[in-house]
Amino acid sequence: MSASVVPACELCAGDGGEVLWQHPVFRVVLVDEADYPGFCRVICHEHVKEMTDLAPAQRTLMANAVWAVEAALREVMQPEKVNLATLGNMTPHVHWHVIPRFTDDRHFPSPVWAEPRRPADAASIAARRARLPQLREAVRRQLDAAGLTA
Amino acid sequence: MSASVVPACELCAGDGGEVLWQHPVFRVVLVDEADYPGFCRVICHEHVKEMTDLAPAQRTLMANAVWAVEAALREVMQPEKVNLATLGNMTPHVHWHVIPRFTDDRHFPSPVWAEPRRPADAASIAARRARLPQLREAVRRQLDAAGLTA
Repeated sequence: MSASVVPACELCAGDGGEVLWQHPVFRVVLVDEADYPGFCRVICHEHVKEMTDLAPAQRTLMANAVWAVEAALREVMQPEKVNLATLGNMTPHVHWHVIPRFTDDRHFPSPVWAEPRRPADAASIAARRARLPQLREAVRRQLDAAGLTA
Repeated sequence: MSASVVPACELCAGDGGEVLWQHPVFRVVLVDEADYPGFCRVICHEHVKEMTDLAPAQRTLMANAVWAVEAALREVMQPEKVNLATLGNMTPHVHWHVIPRFTDDRHFPSPVWAEPRRPADAASIAARRARLPQLREAVRRQLDAAGLTA
């Protein structure tokens, strides 16, 4: 365990989702969010609070991983929009949310953290969930194409 | 007016805030959000929807601008956390929110788009607002130091 690992931090203690990709600096996980199939996170291995706590080359690596995941989501899920965010108010360990958004999702056009605007549409969600095998493959292919191999 | 300018888009039609920095690819603005003095945006000049609509070099420029603004906010405002996000569900024109967060702000630790947790603290906000002259200077200095000159 490196000196920067903080056991009380959930992203130090666990993977934070189904790991799709491991890199020395970060991992990409598929999150189990019932209403948002395809929601991915790019999680820094090191327990740092802000992007500017990382060296510039590491920031660029993280950002390139976020763009690669965005590209995979666009290719497979064809969302209306992709939302990218690193907040960390509750878990101050750099992790990026990469979220495919659809006009019929629970919150659109609000952010997913706002009050829901409508119930989830079960048929739409099931159709999106059916694409997860392709998404897993596309995420790996895009990260590989971006040169983000371990 | 370039072919990519969409007049119905508020970020094509206007600056979107007090312009602190102009670059050929983006501008940095200070937003007038009453409860969040120091809230900045990094706005792409071109009307594109997603980061992956930009060429890789432009994405990196935008991201480097976001990190420079984050560094300026940390230096001057000393926030508990910085939140970074590009959503664009309502305004599908790439723009990054760079938001200093404080434990006593209206939403902390929720995202600013969630339900408020408490009333705004007028004294804290006034103290933060008083730092805006220093922030303007720091944003420019950090962008210049990052080589993001026009």
